[in-house]
Amino acid sequence: MKKKFVYFFGQGKAEGNAKMKDLLGGKGAGLAEMTNIGVPVPPGFTITTETCILYNQAGKNFPDGLEDDIRSNMAKLEEIMEKGFGYPGNPLLVSVRSGAAASMPGMMDTVLNLGLNDETVQGLVEKTGNERFAYDAYRRFIQMFSDIVLGLEHADFERLLEKMKEEEGVKFDSELNRRALQDLVRRYKGRVRKVTGADFPTDPWQQLTAAIKSVFDSWETPRAVTYRKMNNIPHDMGTGVNVQTMVFGNMGETSGTGVAFTRNPSTGKKQFYGEYLLDAQGEDVVAGIRTPHPILQLKEEMPDAYDQLVEVYQRLEQHYRDMQDIEFTIENHKLFMLQTRTGKRTAKSAVKIAVDMEQEGLIDKREAILRVEPATLDQLLHPHIDPEAKVDVIAKGLAASPGAAAGQAVFTADDACDWAAEGKKVVLVRSETSPEDIHGMYAAEGILTARGGMTSHAAVVARGMGKCCVAGCEAIKVNEETRSFKVGDLTISEGDMITLDGTTGRVILGEAPTIESEMTEEMVTFLSWTDDFRKLKVRTNADTPEDAKKARNFGAQGIGLCRTEHMFFGEERLPHMQAMIVAKDKKARENALAKLLPMQKEDFRGIFLAMEGLPVTIRLLDPPLHEFLPNHEELSVELAELKVKGENNPDRIKELEEIIHQVEGLRESNPMLGHRGCRLGITMPEVYEMQVQAIFEAATELVRDGYVVEPEVMVPLVGHVNELKVIKKQIVKIADEVIANAKVDLNYSIGTMIELPRAAITADEIAGEAEFFSFGTNDLTQTTFGFSRDDAEGKFLGDYLDQGILPANPFQQLDQTGVGELIQIGVTRGRSTRPDLKVGICGEHGGDPSSIEFCHLVGLNYVSCSPFRVPIARLAAAHARLKNE
Amino acid sequence: MKKKFVYFFGQGKAEGNAKMKDLLGGKGAGLAEMTNIGVPVPPGFTITTETCILYNQAGKNFPDGLEDDIRSNMAKLEEIMEKGFGYPGNPLLVSVRSGAAASMPGMMDTVLNLGLNDETVQGLVEKTGNERFAYDAYRRFIQMFSDIVLGLEHADFERLLEKMKEEEGVKFDSELNRRALQDLVRRYKGRVRKVTGADFPTDPWQQLTAAIKSVFDSWETPRAVTYRKMNNIPHDMGTGVNVQTMVFGNMGETSGTGVAFTRNPSTGKKQFYGEYLLDAQGEDVVAGIRTPHPILQLKEEMPDAYDQLVEVYQRLEQHYRDMQDIEFTIENHKLFMLQTRTGKRTAKSAVKIAVDMEQEGLIDKREAILRVEPATLDQLLHPHIDPEAKVDVIAKGLAASPGAAAGQAVFTADDACDWAAEGKKVVLVRSETSPEDIHGMYAAEGILTARGGMTSHAAVVARGMGKCCVAGCEAIKVNEETRSFKVGDLTISEGDMITLDGTTGRVILGEAPTIESEMTEEMVTFLSWTDDFRKLKVRTNADTPEDAKKARNFGAQGIGLCRTEHMFFGEERLPHMQAMIVAKDKKARENALAKLLPMQKEDFRGIFLAMEGLPVTIRLLDPPLHEFLPNHEELSVELAELKVKGENNPDRIKELEEIIHQVEGLRESNPMLGHRGCRLGITMPEVYEMQVQAIFEAATELVRDGYVVEPEVMVPLVGHVNELKVIKKQIVKIADEVIANAKVDLNYSIGTMIELPRAAITADEIAGEAEFFSFGTNDLTQTTFGFSRDDAEGKFLGDYLDQGILPANPFQQLDQTGVGELIQIGVTRGRSTRPDLKVGICGEHGGDPSSIEFCHLVGLNYVSCSPFRVPIARLAAAHARLKNE
Repeated sequence: MKKKFVYFFGQGKAEGNAKMKDLLGGKGAGLAEMTNIGVPVPPGFTITTETCILYNQAGKNFPDGLEDDIRSNMAKLEEIMEKGFGYPGNPLLVSVRSGAAASMPGMMDTVLNLGLNDETVQGLVEKTGNERFAYDAYRRFIQMFSDIVLGLEHADFERLLEKMKEEEGVKFDSELNRRALQDLVRRYKGRVRKVTGADFPTDPWQQLTAAIKSVFDSWETPRAVTYRKMNNIPHDMGTGVNVQTMVFGNMGETSGTGVAFTRNPSTGKKQFYGEYLLDAQGEDVVAGIRTPHPILQLKEEMPDAYDQLVEVYQRLEQHYRDMQDIEFTIENHKLFMLQTRTGKRTAKSAVKIAVDMEQEGLIDKREAILRVEPATLDQLLHPHIDPEAKVDVIAKGLAASPGAAAGQAVFTADDACDWAAEGKKVVLVRSETSPEDIHGMYAAEGILTARGGMTSHAAVVARGMGKCCVAGCEAIKVNEETRSFKVGDLTISEGDMITLDGTTGRVILGEAPTIESEMTEEMVTFLSWTDDFRKLKVRTNADTPEDAKKARNFGAQGIGLCRTEHMFFGEERLPHMQAMIVAKDKKARENALAKLLPMQKEDFRGIFLAMEGLPVTIRLLDPPLHEFLPNHEELSVELAELKVKGENNPDRIKELEEIIHQVEGLRESNPMLGHRGCRLGITMPEVYEMQVQAIFEAATELVRDGYVVEPEVMVPLVGHVNELKVIKKQIVKIADEVIANAKVDLNYSIGTMIELPRAAITADEIAGEAEFFSFGTNDLTQTTFGFSRDDAEGKFLGDYLDQGILPANPFQQLDQTGVGELIQIGVTRGRSTRPDLKVGICGEHGGDPSSIEFCHLVGLNYVSCSPFRVPIARLAAAHARLKNE
Repeated sequence: MKKKFVYFFGQGKAEGNAKMKDLLGGKGAGLAEMTNIGVPVPPGFTITTETCILYNQAGKNFPDGLEDDIRSNMAKLEEIMEKGFGYPGNPLLVSVRSGAAASMPGMMDTVLNLGLNDETVQGLVEKTGNERFAYDAYRRFIQMFSDIVLGLEHADFERLLEKMKEEEGVKFDSELNRRALQDLVRRYKGRVRKVTGADFPTDPWQQLTAAIKSVFDSWETPRAVTYRKMNNIPHDMGTGVNVQTMVFGNMGETSGTGVAFTRNPSTGKKQFYGEYLLDAQGEDVVAGIRTPHPILQLKEEMPDAYDQLVEVYQRLEQHYRDMQDIEFTIENHKLFMLQTRTGKRTAKSAVKIAVDMEQEGLIDKREAILRVEPATLDQLLHPHIDPEAKVDVIAKGLAASPGAAAGQAVFTADDACDWAAEGKKVVLVRSETSPEDIHGMYAAEGILTARGGMTSHAAVVARGMGKCCVAGCEAIKVNEETRSFKVGDLTISEGDMITLDGTTGRVILGEAPTIESEMTEEMVTFLSWTDDFRKLKVRTNADTPEDAKKARNFGAQGIGLCRTEHMFFGEERLPHMQAMIVAKDKKARENALAKLLPMQKEDFRGIFLAMEGLPVTIRLLDPPLHEFLPNHEELSVELAELKVKGENNPDRIKELEEIIHQVEGLRESNPMLGHRGCRLGITMPEVYEMQVQAIFEAATELVRDGYVVEPEVMVPLVGHVNELKVIKKQIVKIADEVIANAKVDLNYSIGTMIELPRAAITADEIAGEAEFFSFGTNDLTQTTFGFSRDDAEGKFLGDYLDQGILPANPFQQLDQTGVGELIQIGVTRGRSTRPDLKVGICGEHGGDPSSIEFCHLVGLNYVSCSPFRVPIARLAAAHARLKNE
């Protein structure tokens, strides 16, 4: 059977409907649906998206029968409109527009007024009695058709138009009279002849065929192909073509055209919102030559049309049960709708509209939840720079961690601490950060680095802290010696005020006004709904009581990852940590640890209190010890310099040699795969012993004071069940001793990170010892791919993404095929041994919506993410459930 | 039903037999079997190994009924021997010996002459008419019993014996007369009383019970427990106890005792081989006080006994169909066998005996193959130090790569090259090696390092090259500036001759005589048999024509891994390689590559020729580029020194700054997970293009000259199928161009390493592009465990092995549970897409017998290993097949 190529709409009924978006494109389906529900739509027909594919497959030839279908539909149109296509007496003019299922840049634009030529324009003159209008329509048609269909330069025609206005001594297009327009038509045609060597096509059928083919061709433009590739739109969907009777908003002050939203797209307020122009055709509203009026003014200027519009927009919103973005034209007081589609909106507006529509009974909670894209919440929760403010942008880097931060520039972590201690707000500026900078990063409002990608140390740590960060800002040259940075000719010195915009990557001179984020009432309501639908719990990664409180405020149901390493970088702690590491004997080591114990205990006490009544997963020390020591190369250079200088400084030389020897001993070729995690716990058990002691002393004291505490001790980097076995024994011994001494009841559990392929593969063995698993997907991604995150980002990941070798950065979006398969294996095997195994994820992926959906699908119990991502995760978890019921 | 605790043997029949080794222990089963086949064995009985377990479980108490069983078996013995246990008139004396299923150090030794006391010794005097003999037996019994059962110091008794000899003015024990011996018995008893506070037990039953318990107890000594742990012997097997009638080799010149092998255990020659002493008891032969005679002399001294012995040993060998290690005693011209067991032998001997016995029809080829442990061949194939030579060992390191090498010490890779070019043999001595030393390692006879473990760079590369290496020799202090090393007070300077023993780790001063390995005729025969039984093919890892030839000689069936990176370290190549890396534009890079192309082509030509007619897998460049550049820290130190010195050397400073900048740009946090392998091929395609060009130009030229060439191009470090897709396209394009230009027919294939967990997990996708897989188990082990080999060995792997967290070093022996599971997944998924996928392994595990068995079981097509391991792999592959039929 022959395929149906063309779908007609008009006279209150259409062959298509809203559900046929894939076949008719978004615009075509919308026109059909509007027609069906009795909204006034200029009649017309849609050529299906399938036809586009057939056309391209056939080497850019119309499939058999298409031309007949077009002719018969055009005949139907002529009959309804009582006009004739190309009929000089009463010419039918049409618009030709593309319309794919998804809106797509690079596709062919609109051609209006098609059907005009030297004869039919006369008919138009006669029918409308408006010569100026008719010739204006004619010159517009030639301009659009030449640009879009014939591929001439738009600018050439603009130039001819400008010249004509000059010659006529007028300012606006609308001031050109009939004669001038007639002349312009002549000049336009001359231009076409000159460039193409052929006359402008006068046959309306030839015009129509060329316009339709032009739409089909535009499906294959490089820009469209690239866009589809980037947005995962299949290449074999094709675009529809809409051929629609022209209505004219430019027939004088009784006509007009406009665009509107059925609610405020920026705030979500329930108010009709848009603009219009009288005596104008579509493109005039957006061209910015005349300033359009706010839609409410139409009520005064043309109350009958306004009333029709209100009736229609309300009907559309009721019908579509969503905020609509509409286009309309008024021709002689009569309203015609040219388009309706779901309106784009800000996150804030999306939440408000969803909540309002639920309360209006338009949609249920499920639908309300699905209406808000989780990722968009990010912009809402961080403080941001007032979009109205004028700012002086001096450089742009990567938007590494969202939010805004203003402060005085400082150039070392210690300075950041000192200045902050004096109550100053600072921004820490570094070439790149290292673990030694952590205390300074905590103290600063924001972090700016010259080097490093989206997953550099600065970026990862800042996101973890929920702190604004602009990374890899290569335009700045940081000079740590002079405590300044240069950008172009500008020098920013220590103490100068700068502002970072972590949401866009902008670096701004001076203090830009920022707007604090807040949990609006709608947001609180909205997020509370998500909790009823999601199966995944949402915890947070938090290392401090402040972060824990913030996350709890955002709805976190516990801590999924409390890293303990950052706790040792504080100024008063690092010396003891270093003393512990280089201790020559057990006694020296124990002395150092004894100094750290009370501090660790205080850390845990604060965190337990902030998360009272909820589980807190504490990960024992993870990074290699050399991260706590000075850099080997810097020491070597200092030593070489001292020696060459020959100054008498034998003490320092001796000291340096000593330190270098110690650092040398801990140096590693691949620290990521080195002596860290539980490997430290096994070779140097005293550190974990101190940490476990601190956890349980803090916990038991709180229990004695009546608080509810749920500690979960997590062992990092387990690859073999025996590692966990050895360390678990040690933990249980100390924990039970402390609990027995405190004479309280305290339940605790012991589990492990699953962050090595071997752990996932042997999860059945490991689950014999572990009461819970937490997938550390950062490290698991590194080991599964064999990518060092630090190196990959700077060296080759960019090329991989550009060349489409990887669909996304696997450190931001979980690689479901590879890493995900290992997670699936880990969950299945783990639960085969221990059916009630609690399983979570605490890598950065725990805050990424697509990764959260994966976590839901493989049956995880919870995700854990940085505090600011908790709301996103709550919503994403609800989406995951609702989309996969 | 009551368990049978005791098994009797005597008078030509035994209750047990050779198959009951687990229950009766090796010795007990041997005694039973010999009895059954009519070999003269002093009658006795064996208490089962199960009894030992019951005894230990019952808190060191005899199980009910055991004592009755012992008594009834003793009665049977008394009846046969027509003597009485503890009967002064005609006393029955027995020996008590332990005997587990596996021979085990730390177990109780032999107690002879049990049953003697002041009364029964008189009976012995009367029955033998030999007072001296009787008292000598008595004092020996007290000495042994006190030492072994009562736990007194052996040295105390030796001292008393020495004192007595002094008093008597004699030199040998045998010169002591009856009176002196009688006195010695008294003194011994006094000693026992003094130390234990109790009299020496005179009741024979009490003696027997204590001796049996002592055997049982010895099962649980720490030494025995540790040995079982190390050798994977289950703790619940227990040891048997053998109680056997005494026969006496010390009844004058008509008696004697000896040990022998039915064939030469060191050469395998078919000759009766052993030693004996007349008038001696068992321990005298091994004690070394009197020099035993070679067994052939017995033919002269006591032809009747010798004839009996020959008859018996031949019967035993025929019966057991293997070379036997036997113990015998002759009492008054009558031969008694006390033990027979499979004789331990050298690898050389094992091969010869296996081949001979097959030819003698004793065993079939399968059994011959299974008789030789694959790992033992290692000692045969490398040159080794003459075991007869006297050598001056100055230090001991790790036996990192077997073989022997003598040469003059040099301290830099460049010196090694220069000296070698002058025809000198050198040993390269370094603190540790890095990839920059490769050319020196090639030039040297052997490599000695002060630091680094069994899998350090030096060790791995040396094994790959089949070059002798002693690594981690911590006793030596290398000073590269003065070109010398110190060990203790000794200084070895450049040019001094040293010898390395890579099989034992010895460092020897001067030139020790070495013996070249050779493929003996038996070896060639033997290995040819293995080829009929194995399913796995064996290829070699070889980067040079020399290695390829060597391996082919050893039976390699192609090259499984030809690494191309070592080719760029040559003195004339490195500069071009470096120029290529730091090239500022495409042209500069192409210039450098154009210089390398002809050299690469020569490399491949040589290798193809050496492997003519067999497949050659060439891996494209793998290591990160900074391995080819100087060390960043050394450069920084040099720069700092220059700057501080203030000398006028602006050119060098500028040059250094330039190089540092370039090195800085390539520097990586975790090079193992960094910008290497196919990631280079994607971001810098010119290198692979040059390599592919070189491969196919070399191959097509050879084909044109009539040679058969089978190139297989292997892409390293693929983690995502798209990586392979991109690079494969590039390879095919160049290859097909070169082939078309050459107008020849050449089949080639393109495949990939599977060395990342993600590659194994997504093997189904990757097999869509790859025609073969080669598991790179070195890297796969690193990523699966998250272990950096370099760091793990030096930092924590030792602790892991000591504490039993890992059963073996996973870099030496494939971790079957984790890494193996990924291999299994990779094979299954790969073949699900491409059933005829060729799969091999080319990590170091390809030469490890247990790993080879695993490869056989998961259905790999081949293993590839270093040349010297090829014979081992051939044998191990045959074992794998035969053991798993």
